Amino acid sequence: MRARRAPVTRDDGARMLEELRQHVCQANLDLVRAGLVTLTFGNVSGIDRDRGLVVIKPSGVPYEELDPERMVVVDMDGRAVEGLERPSSDTATHVVLYRTFLGVRGIAHTHSPYATMFAQARREISCLGTTHADHFRGAVPVTRVLTEDEVATDYEGNTGRVIAERLAALDPIAMPAVLVAGHGPFTWGPTAAASVRNAIALEAVAKMAIGTRLLDPRAPDLEPYVLEKHYQRKHGPAAYYGQ
Amino acid sequence: MRARRAPVTRDDGARMLEELRQHVCQANLDLVRAGLVTLTFGNVSGIDRDRGLVVIKPSGVPYEELDPERMVVVDMDGRAVEGLERPSSDTATHVVLYRTFLGVRGIAHTHSPYATMFAQARREISCLGTTHADHFRGAVPVTRVLTEDEVATDYEGNTGRVIAERLAALDPIAMPAVLVAGHGPFTWGPTAAASVRNAIALEAVAKMAIGTRLLDPRAPDLEPYVLEKHYQRKHGPAAYYGQ
Amino acid sequence: MRARRAPVTRDDGARMLEELRQHVCQANLDLVRAGLVTLTFGNVSGIDRDRGLVVIKPSGVPYEELDPERMVVVDMDGRAVEGLERPSSDTATHVVLYRTFLGVRGIAHTHSPYATMFAQARREISCLGTTHADHFRGAVPVTRVLTEDEVATDYEGNTGRVIAERLAALDPIAMPAVLVAGHGPFTWGPTAAASVRNAIALEAVAKMAIGTRLLDPRAPDLEPYVLEKHYQRKHGPAAYYGQ
Amino acid sequence: MRARRAPVTRDDGARMLEELRQHVCQANLDLVRAGLVTLTFGNVSGIDRDRGLVVIKPSGVPYEELDPERMVVVDMDGRAVEGLERPSSDTATHVVLYRTFLGVRGIAHTHSPYATMFAQARREISCLGTTHADHFRGAVPVTRVLTEDEVATDYEGNTGRVIAERLAALDPIAMPAVLVAGHGPFTWGPTAAASVRNAIALEAVAKMAIGTRLLDPRAPDLEPYVLEKHYQRKHGPAAYYGQ
Repeated sequence: MRARRAPVTRDDGARMLEELRQHVCQANLDLVRAGLVTLTFGNVSGIDRDRGLVVIKPSGVPYEELDPERMVVVDMDGRAVEGLERPSSDTATHVVLYRTFLGVRGIAHTHSPYATMFAQARREISCLGTTHADHFRGAVPVTRVLTEDEVATDYEGNTGRVIAERLAALDPIAMPAVLVAGHGPFTWGPTAAASVRNAIALEAVAKMAIGTRLLDPRAPDLEPYVLEKHYQRKHGPAAYYGQ
Repeated sequence: MRARRAPVTRDDGARMLEELRQHVCQANLDLVRAGLVTLTFGNVSGIDRDRGLVVIKPSGVPYEELDPERMVVVDMDGRAVEGLERPSSDTATHVVLYRTFLGVRGIAHTHSPYATMFAQARREISCLGTTHADHFRGAVPVTRVLTEDEVATDYEGNTGRVIAERLAALDPIAMPAVLVAGHGPFTWGPTAAASVRNAIALEAVAKMAIGTRLLDPRAPDLEPYVLEKHYQRKHGPAAYYGQ
Repeated sequence: MRARRAPVTRDDGARMLEELRQHVCQANLDLVRAGLVTLTFGNVSGIDRDRGLVVIKPSGVPYEELDPERMVVVDMDGRAVEGLERPSSDTATHVVLYRTFLGVRGIAHTHSPYATMFAQARREISCLGTTHADHFRGAVPVTRVLTEDEVATDYEGNTGRVIAERLAALDPIAMPAVLVAGHGPFTWGPTAAASVRNAIALEAVAKMAIGTRLLDPRAPDLEPYVLEKHYQRKHGPAAYYGQ
Repeated sequence: MRARRAPVTRDDGARMLEELRQHVCQANLDLVRAGLVTLTFGNVSGIDRDRGLVVIKPSGVPYEELDPERMVVVDMDGRAVEGLERPSSDTATHVVLYRTFLGVRGIAHTHSPYATMFAQARREISCLGTTHADHFRGAVPVTRVLTEDEVATDYEGNTGRVIAERLAALDPIAMPAVLVAGHGPFTWGPTAAASVRNAIALEAVAKMAIGTRLLDPRAPDLEPYVLEKHYQRKHGPAAYYGQ
């Protein structure tokens, strides 16, 4: 689960970008395979931090037509530097998040149904069980609604800014997900693949949370010491989950 | 996403109809592949506006047996002019809609479960989020119930007429869907494929709306300026979604 | 949709039984393919009325191992007359229904989740829309609970008897489904394949009914004249649905 | 459904362990095929009681990479004795259960959504119908929450101990499932495959129970004499379900 990389030299750059295209393309396809995508609602990106380049899905292209060559490369201002296609319309959001969350190297955005239900209801997802605690260290937060001005000017960039604002007091590695009010979830992680795994976990957790609330509207949050135990056994310095 | 066509000459007519048969057959199969069809509940049609001919699925034929040759061609009075099979029992509804919505070239009808739940509850689908706004410019409306007389005489034609009545004050391009009370959804668009995409989007939006209401029966509508932004970035004159 | 058969002679009997084995085996597999079966909860039978023989799934056999030769043939007393395997534990229920509903030639039993929710809540499924009316002429009824004595002696036969009791005032061709209280649905029809189609329709209708009630606990029944129109256009003497 | 085995000699041991690796690997894959696993949330083990060895899934390994050779063998203290991979992080729970439930030879753990909703709501699953009674002789119980001390020291072993505590007054063969509060279900049985079948049945039963409660929050429990009849016809000394 943890990325292991050799130190990067200038000469490795082109090859790394090629590998990143492949990795990001695969991550986009994995998002579909996981059932999180309806039509073309969803996109995954990855960043090459050494070169300051982001690889992202082209906008509105059917998933069956995606291949690594069709991925678009943009710089840290969101300008396309490689690729014939227009990048995802959400590119500016991704770029703001990469500028803000320096440990993040992959971002996924979906309209997956259960997470989106919470985003539309503008309610955080409380931590009700260990499935949640295995991935998210506490309630998954929801942003405020953008103002009319924020929507009128640089809407996608401002979407990234309200996410950054909401996460300001949180560690984005321990809380790799947010719900944009009235919109849907963004997730992230140390790789594009990790951001997709977090999108899958978020959807599973959201579905379970809705059902739990139907069974008991006052179901209690998971005890903090169980939350912490599960989070740490998987992600802490003495983690013993995985290989 | 936008249809691009060369000007049509008389000579192209037969070939265009053949292409339309293939396109409509594929659209019917895509409806099944999207999981919107149970048994044979569903049909898609397309129109050749130059010749005034509608291509539609035959009635009650299992989807695995569909091929372009089995599609039925009817004229603007709903009379079969080509094809050995009986056209969909809903053909008269499609024909009325083509007569009324002149910009429409494809129509899909399903009993997809979540959209049908709203049709049966006779409730419009409020716009609760951007997934909705990306496809439908406002709440998806529900028709009135047909009167006993309207059911007794030309039931399917009158179904088209109550849809037209409900859409009278709306732009059918910006609101490409309706719920027939006690029945189910119809969607449309500039092509048969677009009508299927709208059927898929409608089902996703209906599912999310039910879950949102379960989380909070008073969840607010999406802010009008966000709705407009999403609709316009995808469909407006300065759209920047897609290629 | 309607069975068409030449008159039967004695000589055709063996071949017809062989065809019935194949038809019933396929119907069992179609039940699985439709997603209505979890583990081995479900069975379909068919009857050869000329010979008074019922073909039914063997008990507890995994579906991937089913083939026509493993189907079991029982007489009208439920005694196995062909086949090495033990017939479905629900065989006696099927036999009682064949004895009671003389127009029926196929029966399916499932624990499909949405129909079973109504059976467990012991609530009939109201007719809330045309999907329902296309298949079931009115609310799908629920039986009473069997008494302790009825369970102790000939439980499966008595299950058939409480179904027959509940259907006494109904036409089993127009109402080809019932919910056994605390148990699950039985459906039937003129062939085993038709009983499976009714099981599929029942599950779709049950799912929609639950969602409709969540949206509005007081959602109205479908207008009787629309119910009758839909039922008759598909099943009445002047039916015009299908080929 | 019942395991039939020849008496074991020392010489058979190595071969049996090899067969157990294959059986446990297959059971883990069947858990995925049944749709009960999201990401890597889930594990199945089996025990060779003659040698006191438990075969279990390695921790955090993607299911598509599983094969019998990657299964880990641990002793009755949970120490790995064969295999290069780290065993499932839940191994200590499995070992405690094997020590406590002497008739059990297979254990499955999932975070399947519907069963986990009940675990998170900390509510038992009442027996509302015969699907439940066919597998579980009464309400599926829920454990108490572990104390902070129990979590701090030997968390996974103590998870097994609170399960054993909750089952103390029950027969683990007749009640082959439990919900760990705030966590998720464990199921077991006479083989690893049986534990997977019980996990599948539990999920189906949990889904139905939620829907039943939505239809009627006061839906009654199944009559005890029907529960007993269904349980006994499938599992009792005079069982007549299956071959």
